[in-house]
Amino acid sequence: MRRTVSIFGSTGSIGRNTVDLLLRQGGADVYDVKVLTGARNIKLLAEQAILLDAEIAVTAASSLLDALVKALDGTGIIATAGGDALRDAAKIKVDWAMSAIVGSAGLAPTIEMAKHAGILALANKESLVCAGELIKATCAKSGCTLLPVDSEHCAIYQALAGGENRDISRIILTASGGPFRNWTSDQMADATLEQAMAHPNWDMGQRISIDSATMFNKALEVIEAHQLFDVSADQIEVIVHPQSIIHSMIEYNDYSVIAQMAAPDMRGAIGFALNWPERPPLPVKQLDFATISQLDFATPDETRFPALRLARRVLEIGGLAGAVFNAAKESALDRFISADIGFLDMAQLVETVLESLHVKAGRSSSLEGLETVMAIDKEAREMGQQWMPE
Amino acid sequence: MRRTVSIFGSTGSIGRNTVDLLLRQGGADVYDVKVLTGARNIKLLAEQAILLDAEIAVTAASSLLDALVKALDGTGIIATAGGDALRDAAKIKVDWAMSAIVGSAGLAPTIEMAKHAGILALANKESLVCAGELIKATCAKSGCTLLPVDSEHCAIYQALAGGENRDISRIILTASGGPFRNWTSDQMADATLEQAMAHPNWDMGQRISIDSATMFNKALEVIEAHQLFDVSADQIEVIVHPQSIIHSMIEYNDYSVIAQMAAPDMRGAIGFALNWPERPPLPVKQLDFATISQLDFATPDETRFPALRLARRVLEIGGLAGAVFNAAKESALDRFISADIGFLDMAQLVETVLESLHVKAGRSSSLEGLETVMAIDKEAREMGQQWMPE
Repeated sequence: MRRTVSIFGSTGSIGRNTVDLLLRQGGADVYDVKVLTGARNIKLLAEQAILLDAEIAVTAASSLLDALVKALDGTGIIATAGGDALRDAAKIKVDWAMSAIVGSAGLAPTIEMAKHAGILALANKESLVCAGELIKATCAKSGCTLLPVDSEHCAIYQALAGGENRDISRIILTASGGPFRNWTSDQMADATLEQAMAHPNWDMGQRISIDSATMFNKALEVIEAHQLFDVSADQIEVIVHPQSIIHSMIEYNDYSVIAQMAAPDMRGAIGFALNWPERPPLPVKQLDFATISQLDFATPDETRFPALRLARRVLEIGGLAGAVFNAAKESALDRFISADIGFLDMAQLVETVLESLHVKAGRSSSLEGLETVMAIDKEAREMGQQWMPE
Repeated sequence: MRRTVSIFGSTGSIGRNTVDLLLRQGGADVYDVKVLTGARNIKLLAEQAILLDAEIAVTAASSLLDALVKALDGTGIIATAGGDALRDAAKIKVDWAMSAIVGSAGLAPTIEMAKHAGILALANKESLVCAGELIKATCAKSGCTLLPVDSEHCAIYQALAGGENRDISRIILTASGGPFRNWTSDQMADATLEQAMAHPNWDMGQRISIDSATMFNKALEVIEAHQLFDVSADQIEVIVHPQSIIHSMIEYNDYSVIAQMAAPDMRGAIGFALNWPERPPLPVKQLDFATISQLDFATPDETRFPALRLARRVLEIGGLAGAVFNAAKESALDRFISADIGFLDMAQLVETVLESLHVKAGRSSSLEGLETVMAIDKEAREMGQQWMPE
């Protein structure tokens, strides 16, 4: 029996690496690929679908249905398009599903995957940030195993090794510090899109690379860690570790620290989730500590990187503050990418939106349902679009 | 019901720390202390026995029985002495036993502990080096849980977190490098006892401190790791890590590395074994990575530290090569302590003895029994005593 799998967001950075691993591990001979989804890169989506002999290929962009149909002509692979098609595809029962759509657009399909997949490999951190309680409750009800694919949370998962988290005193998330680790505030104020995208260690998509430069990515990960491992804000520490070798650590009550390390290659975390609980070899570089020679650590500067302070504020507000924070962050990112606001404006925008909506966010919960989450997401996003720098 | 415990070697460095933890965790109110044993420090042994309200105190030195009887006069604590008394005391059934006698003298009582204790906390690494198969077979038969107390092996045990070791590709033992890490061979040739005892990180007994300076301690640990975790010589790597923060690491087939870290304080490993599988707070320093700032790694220099090469040779020979190696090392250590041979002579002595006895050692096994092990130990020790530097 081949294992049934789906990849949501297969043309992005995580998705491409997932396809790569599936192919290296036997492709269609080993895996019965049900669904691949992408957005605008129809050529790649069709190529992947053909290589893996997928059953269905879905593009999120309705306008590109014809192009997808044409690209898959004669292959027998079904082409669909649009948000409803995405959700329908997520309702197909599979042994293993990868949720790797970027941003809160991934939330609706992720909830369906949590209902219908045996294992949900979750790279879409926004699902947990915006609707952690809902995702967890859905998995608990369906019996779906949630495996985090973010390298930091995968590290914590591995460090815990199936153990209890009741004895955890602290989670230590490592952060590379991004391309602006040693920049001054003045330099950062003038940072260009290209500079923000030049991540020193990780080869990632555009949006997450910029989120690493602002450390908004780490802020999302703080909220994600809170949701996944049931730890409070004061139990989560962020430490700058420029080499990105230690992917994160847990500390127990007896002050014993367990760290997971690996070369900075997303195929480590993706492969872990794909093969769990087995650990076959993966195409990642072996660590050689004599060559590595040195690992460094430093306290993050929250003046230049206010995102970390805002993450704690999100946990303090609770409720749907994560959804507000993420939507505001996404609109800030859109505006920075289109050169509408400066690099440091992003955090100011997010803070303003978060404080404007904090009472409303604090009163609500993702357990009220996806509509409630998407409503406050929309409100925060609109506020973000209207925000003007002082 | 109080937990029944015994400590063999309670007046040494590990023993004193074990007593300290028992007292901090409630002493005689919580623990029903059956046996404490020591050698020549009768005053401390009697003090510990009284503090913990032990049932029996044993001194390994028969000549000191009168002194022990006198020191315990009126306390109701039974005093015994000598090798047979030690073995008899190890036959008393307890929930938890600490084996912390230094050297191969700890072997006979450790085998009895493995028969009669629910959990055997093993700090006497020589037991595993000299008679690993016998100890493991004894534990398997009695149902005794073996918990390593060496900080490196405790680290590996924690990193594994009860998981399978079939997926392990490598064990990476860290070594501080000892006081002579940056010394030249010429400087090392003239090293004094006092210099060899000045360990940079760990506060330990005299013998193990010198074994750290020669890296014979790490060589014993390589053999110990082989016995405990069923890994071959080429799966065990030693890396110099001067800060002694990472206590050791395991690498899985997928090149994911799990490391255990803690402040260099033996109460971490002792407390782990004492409280396992619980993890209450321990009186060890919390790690602060911003203050630590840097962790360094380097390849060990096997020219200056031949002990590591000899450890691989021991695994290659197999059989009782570990017993020969350890006995030769102990006699070399005795002779260095009494200023009879120089620092670098120790490794030469051990290599000569090991090669002289390698055929005989390779043909035998500790499963033949303690007598066989002790016979080859005696032979190696005598050879070591007669060895002369060229």
